[in-house]
Amino acid sequence: MPLSEFDLIRQWFSAIGPRRADVALAVGDDCALLRVPAGRELAISIDTLVEGVHFVAGTDPVALGHKALAVNLSDLAAMGAEPAWFTLALTLPRSDPAWIAAFSRGLAGLAESAGVQLVGGDTTRGPLAITIQVHGFVEPGRAIRRSGARPGDHIFVTGTLGDGALGLAVELGRYDAGPHRAALLERLHRPTPRLAAGCRLAPAVSGGIDISDGLLADLGHICTESGVGARILAERLPLSPALQAWTRTTGDWRPVLAGGDDYELCLTVPPERMAEFRILAQGVDCPVTEIGRIEEAPGIRCIGADGAPLAPIKPGFDHFAA
Amino acid sequence: MPLSEFDLIRQWFSAIGPRRADVALAVGDDCALLRVPAGRELAISIDTLVEGVHFVAGTDPVALGHKALAVNLSDLAAMGAEPAWFTLALTLPRSDPAWIAAFSRGLAGLAESAGVQLVGGDTTRGPLAITIQVHGFVEPGRAIRRSGARPGDHIFVTGTLGDGALGLAVELGRYDAGPHRAALLERLHRPTPRLAAGCRLAPAVSGGIDISDGLLADLGHICTESGVGARILAERLPLSPALQAWTRTTGDWRPVLAGGDDYELCLTVPPERMAEFRILAQGVDCPVTEIGRIEEAPGIRCIGADGAPLAPIKPGFDHFAA
Repeated sequence: MPLSEFDLIRQWFSAIGPRRADVALAVGDDCALLRVPAGRELAISIDTLVEGVHFVAGTDPVALGHKALAVNLSDLAAMGAEPAWFTLALTLPRSDPAWIAAFSRGLAGLAESAGVQLVGGDTTRGPLAITIQVHGFVEPGRAIRRSGARPGDHIFVTGTLGDGALGLAVELGRYDAGPHRAALLERLHRPTPRLAAGCRLAPAVSGGIDISDGLLADLGHICTESGVGARILAERLPLSPALQAWTRTTGDWRPVLAGGDDYELCLTVPPERMAEFRILAQGVDCPVTEIGRIEEAPGIRCIGADGAPLAPIKPGFDHFAA
Repeated sequence: MPLSEFDLIRQWFSAIGPRRADVALAVGDDCALLRVPAGRELAISIDTLVEGVHFVAGTDPVALGHKALAVNLSDLAAMGAEPAWFTLALTLPRSDPAWIAAFSRGLAGLAESAGVQLVGGDTTRGPLAITIQVHGFVEPGRAIRRSGARPGDHIFVTGTLGDGALGLAVELGRYDAGPHRAALLERLHRPTPRLAAGCRLAPAVSGGIDISDGLLADLGHICTESGVGARILAERLPLSPALQAWTRTTGDWRPVLAGGDDYELCLTVPPERMAEFRILAQGVDCPVTEIGRIEEAPGIRCIGADGAPLAPIKPGFDHFAA
């Protein structure tokens, strides 16, 4: 006999993540009741993953549970917020206890390590889709925003770029990555939200965003919101061995510049805060690499190793583009 | 040319609801930044409406915008919370500016009257589904919970029951309601979240819930969480003229007892607080009707006009039931 909706919720989603002292009431009533620490602002973000759009049908549910939470936590990281709670609205075509158990295991693993508690949710029948809202804390006035970059600021990114997009090509059978296959799929399916980096570096940055739609698109948001432009040097872009091999053999920078699903941070740092930033970056658990400078002229200029601009690349991923 | 995803979000969802002073940053960055008043708990609830499950294909988008927000605000009402903000994750099969404009108009109308500001969201492509999370404030320890009912407590409901379910029968062409047609469809499509009633009555109640899955199912949640049972009198149940006509001609109490989509409140009141409750109820903008009492024995007994129990009715709506 299929589980009822209420059994589903109770059985798998009643205790995900640590039991936090700031949760007065979690799953099980009409609302969750939560306490934001005195003197902190609440930072929230909501994102949906739809089967066939954000992930292929048949994706491992453990990985999906991890990723659905990771992409949302990445938004908290981008603001320099400390993660606290999340809610889950899960739409499932059928009640499949094995799938739900695996999905909740993936969710719980990251929730535990990130210190976020599942405090509420809704389970409905329909085409597979996962909506998560995350909640975190920031000191008033200290959140990293897209609008703070100024000409002369140094541009940094965390981790490496392009692995998510090339991982998707591997997943879809369009690229045989040879020895890099496992690493690329791991990056695609289990992105690491840069929470510690965001929190730690926030005091020294002027602006920032997470790279979910590709560097050009997301740095483009910083430029638009800040009323500036940027120049980046292709040879400075941090690449994994897989992407080094790819760009060397193909000369194709699209996965690096316009690929999605990296969930690294792009941060801008004013010259006068560079010393502080360098010190803070030493304590971060991932590479932090300078890739260029903010400029006054609008647009992003991406310069190749020969000093000439790369050929134009259409930035980003747009669900509704023609 | 279709609008891009970012155009969509900017154009229609950038200014919905009042501009609240407790919103430091709304739509447009990686997170919204919000301020919970000192000494208040944050109450949150998330719910999804899926086309073909919660509403029929082709539903008027203005009504859908209203309803998607209303069903979520109803959860705040059920806790006695004061509404503040909401987020919207909207999954659309295609970019249809006329649909989006109408949907956002329905959303904005209720947001304005309820005083809730849209502070963030996500727009994705996929099968039509609407997920909304609402955020409100309650005094610590004063939220209405499902677990507080005690034997002897009086049971009240707001408004009238059964209109949502009968309205759905009209919508689906299964019932010709004659002169009541418009009123039933209005109740189905534009439910009124009982926000003022929830806030005002909260100090005098021991427990409560909103009636989204039918009285038996939702009062059943109160009973389960409180470890009690209930006796309700069918002749006391508040009915609109449409439901009076229906029960009189058919003798069928299912829409009233087991129908969904009413979004009224069911509240329990200890005998010693009845005087206070009566006074508070006089200031509420909808009928508040006593329908029975909480008892020790588990289960809900529904007594007909002849003093005998009604025939058993299967309670509630379960998305995953066989």
